[in-house]
Amino acid sequence: MDEGEAMRLVSHARVARLATIDSEGRPHVVPVVFAADGRHIVTAVDHKPKTTTALKRVGNVAAHPRVSLLVDHYEEDWTRLWWVRVDGEAKTVSTGSEFDDALARLAAKYEQYRDQPPPGPVIVVAVDRVVGWSASAAGA
Amino acid sequence: MDEGEAMRLVSHARVARLATIDSEGRPHVVPVVFAADGRHIVTAVDHKPKTTTALKRVGNVAAHPRVSLLVDHYEEDWTRLWWVRVDGEAKTVSTGSEFDDALARLAAKYEQYRDQPPPGPVIVVAVDRVVGWSASAAGA
Repeated sequence: MDEGEAMRLVSHARVARLATIDSEGRPHVVPVVFAADGRHIVTAVDHKPKTTTALKRVGNVAAHPRVSLLVDHYEEDWTRLWWVRVDGEAKTVSTGSEFDDALARLAAKYEQYRDQPPPGPVIVVAVDRVVGWSASAAGA
Repeated sequence: MDEGEAMRLVSHARVARLATIDSEGRPHVVPVVFAADGRHIVTAVDHKPKTTTALKRVGNVAAHPRVSLLVDHYEEDWTRLWWVRVDGEAKTVSTGSEFDDALARLAAKYEQYRDQPPPGPVIVVAVDRVVGWSASAAGA
């Protein structure tokens, strides 16, 4: 699939998986809700920011800004599988207009955030690579 | 959730996301079908092993054996979210009884593989850490 189609699939997905690298150089992966807009993806630390897991994601991004985010579709008919992987540089933002913007985009996409905005911080990913695959296009 | 419950959720899941580290130290994440059995998880390079993507996963594991595998549940009612992350050491196996065993376990779980066994190689992950989270247990 082309990059436009891939980013369209990403922007419509409700959940993605964010892979980071921890301080010891090991991979780490968590599910995230997110908003995608052209060349940036934003996600927030939403549940219990003081937990180890949430803090770990933020610490990982600070130590290793490269991240990889995956959106995929699974069903038992494997001729209908597809996935899109987005790679980029991430940063953590806790205040200011970029933070407010990210929260507004997340609230626009997720009704759940309109009732209860996430405390943040937010992670902003500047996308520099988009790779998509579909079983049908691959001739499965 | 306790580790037994977490591994039960993993073993019943149909798809997981495998995070690895590439030769340049960047995170990489792909969806995988897999079989989990006690302390090992196996997955196969199934579609078109000569593609860049499939080879990359195998190359990543050779260069950086640490991997992280995520199983998660998403729905719009966020009080029902859960995920399980499994960390471990991976190796690639292309022949022999460990390879045959892995394919047999994958075929037992996925009817799709019974019609068309994956060419392999397989990736075998020796699990050393299991972390589970659920919104309900977290008091969301």
